[in-house]
Amino acid sequence: MVALCAREEVAVVAQGGNTGLVGGAVPTGTRREIVLSLTRMNRIRSLDPLNDTITVEAGCVLAAVQKAAEDAGRLFPLSLAAEGSCQIGGNLSTNAGGVNVLRYGTAREQVLGLEVVLADGRVWDGLRALRKDNTGYDLKQLFLGAEGTLGIITAAVLRLFPRPSATATVWIALDNPRAAVELLGGLRERLGERLSAFELVSRACVEAVLTHSPGLQDPLAATHPWYVLAELGDNGDPAALRERVESALADCAEQGVLRDAALAQSGEQSRELWRIRETIPEAQFTNVKHDISVPVSRIAEFIDQAGRSLRERFGEIAIYCFGHVGDGNLHYNVGSEALMERREEVSRVVYDALGPFAGSISAEHGLGQLKRDEIRRHKHPLELELMHSLKRTLDPRGLMNPGKML
Amino acid sequence: MVALCAREEVAVVAQGGNTGLVGGAVPTGTRREIVLSLTRMNRIRSLDPLNDTITVEAGCVLAAVQKAAEDAGRLFPLSLAAEGSCQIGGNLSTNAGGVNVLRYGTAREQVLGLEVVLADGRVWDGLRALRKDNTGYDLKQLFLGAEGTLGIITAAVLRLFPRPSATATVWIALDNPRAAVELLGGLRERLGERLSAFELVSRACVEAVLTHSPGLQDPLAATHPWYVLAELGDNGDPAALRERVESALADCAEQGVLRDAALAQSGEQSRELWRIRETIPEAQFTNVKHDISVPVSRIAEFIDQAGRSLRERFGEIAIYCFGHVGDGNLHYNVGSEALMERREEVSRVVYDALGPFAGSISAEHGLGQLKRDEIRRHKHPLELELMHSLKRTLDPRGLMNPGKML
Repeated sequence: MVALCAREEVAVVAQGGNTGLVGGAVPTGTRREIVLSLTRMNRIRSLDPLNDTITVEAGCVLAAVQKAAEDAGRLFPLSLAAEGSCQIGGNLSTNAGGVNVLRYGTAREQVLGLEVVLADGRVWDGLRALRKDNTGYDLKQLFLGAEGTLGIITAAVLRLFPRPSATATVWIALDNPRAAVELLGGLRERLGERLSAFELVSRACVEAVLTHSPGLQDPLAATHPWYVLAELGDNGDPAALRERVESALADCAEQGVLRDAALAQSGEQSRELWRIRETIPEAQFTNVKHDISVPVSRIAEFIDQAGRSLRERFGEIAIYCFGHVGDGNLHYNVGSEALMERREEVSRVVYDALGPFAGSISAEHGLGQLKRDEIRRHKHPLELELMHSLKRTLDPRGLMNPGKML
Repeated sequence: MVALCAREEVAVVAQGGNTGLVGGAVPTGTRREIVLSLTRMNRIRSLDPLNDTITVEAGCVLAAVQKAAEDAGRLFPLSLAAEGSCQIGGNLSTNAGGVNVLRYGTAREQVLGLEVVLADGRVWDGLRALRKDNTGYDLKQLFLGAEGTLGIITAAVLRLFPRPSATATVWIALDNPRAAVELLGGLRERLGERLSAFELVSRACVEAVLTHSPGLQDPLAATHPWYVLAELGDNGDPAALRERVESALADCAEQGVLRDAALAQSGEQSRELWRIRETIPEAQFTNVKHDISVPVSRIAEFIDQAGRSLRERFGEIAIYCFGHVGDGNLHYNVGSEALMERREEVSRVVYDALGPFAGSISAEHGLGQLKRDEIRRHKHPLELELMHSLKRTLDPRGLMNPGKML
């Protein structure tokens, strides 16, 4: 199909689960192009438990990959809100993040090998299942996170991990984001990399969730300005893990880092806590959304600074700040429907606030169509020039997902 | 310096600690070129404990980076035999491996940002300290593992990890490599990713070490055909870790996977065990060396098959097989001084044996000059073509480390 398109000078927009948030898999309509759905390429080609690898086609739904790993007693750690419908090809093409990056890394880091259809229709078979291979340029890195602009990922060899036999979920109340970063350091020191997720949630987010989903309950009796939802995993006895988590939390409470904490007492309680976190995106539907990152050490400073700049410009303004604080990645959503017509102005303030922190305007959602212009204000011209030269090298006629990223 | 060389059409061979094993940092003498030493660019520029990052210049000796991390209560996990003299720029340019890849990944995976001098002398400042940034092609991946053929890495932002407060070292006797792979699965299941190193050692290697270094002792009373040296780390109480390791080993012994095991009782004993492993390279000095990888699940089969092919061709022949079995990476060294004049023939047999396993002829040492021709027999022409097109794009006049890799 791609070869045919190449011959006929038709551009190709690869599309997976179509759950992206920046229009990366949507045609722009400015030239002759087709949408190429990967949905039917959805086989799990193989799973090698002793090599801890799974070979999947691009159209596999993320949850199906997780399930196949689970059936073999393994963990495929990539996990995000859209996992029931997003497809692994899209996850890899956008270098998806999600809630387990702290412990397991982004989508890119899960990949040992790729199969890619190049712009001229030739297939590069890079489906290696090796943990170490230093025999030239690591070509797969080019296509991971490239949003389909350099070629189309059709299959991948992914890493699997030991499946934790013990997990613990805890909801922690804090005074401010600075305490969250301190708590992260304290828990990592005491619990090592048992910590797999560490999600910041502001009180405004919790209130939006409770209004939106009256079935959900505030996990703590008193209200607090900030919370962290943390997930821990280990092999061995669940009671031993809970005991260690309780003791680490007690230490941190003694040092005044946290105000209160609720450790889930059952799988159902754990799911309830996660439901609060997962409901946040839909609970504050219409506002100006951002997916930004800064160094973890500077999160609190950024939140202060961005909030101050927004209030200076727009007066009192609702801010829904939540996200993967363990990765320095915040979903920093601003205002309400009334502010939507000034959305570019709002985003400009937020993005400009990133400058002093050398932050990113897109931590895990990619550039797509939405941030394609904005990025030119942030990236050094030399870097943009290098990106364009790679694009020209691999897709000289600009047939791969035109109008996206660059 | 690089700009000057570009103007004068002088090629540049970047050199770090000069500890590479494939001639990647050695000029070929076939054209006008200089060796550019990075040794004096050896500052630790900064360390951010809350972001768990360190920013270092290329000329920093690996051990100095480890030390700076340790002084801040953190771990920089890259660790290999040459760490006292190799430099981080070289480690990154060769995507070095070492003993902790199983747990922490290769050099590439430790990098958040890079500073690179391009072939024309311009400096790309990609020194970002972000854990998530999806704003275009991930340019740093191009230069990692490229052996200085696309540009010169001058500085990097590296990840740090919590420092394990408990460690355990264990020497395990086994019947065969198949048992080693089974044991790896069993220990990962029981101990999760506490396992940071898992090194296979054949009896021939141990004997070579004991002959070469009479001060070292055989860790077990009886002799066994194969051993594994495993290292485990955790946060928390060292006694608790030892207890868990003992219990996991007892389980595996009961299932008949291992024959005997000695758990180091002190730091000194642990260092003694590691000394055996680290002495192997120098203990079998003159023979035909290989650094290969296969999927972990197929290691035993490869060892059988390669041994059979070698014996068919060369009769009884010494094989020193050791390495990072947890990564599917073997240092598979063959024969003695007498066989050196047939070294190409020997390597041909070993490399051809990799074919059915889709293995790699260079797991962690790179291609350099040594394997530059050989790789053409193994890589698909399309992949070589893609590599050449990247080289032309980033170094159109071929000034960066000519005669290496491709």
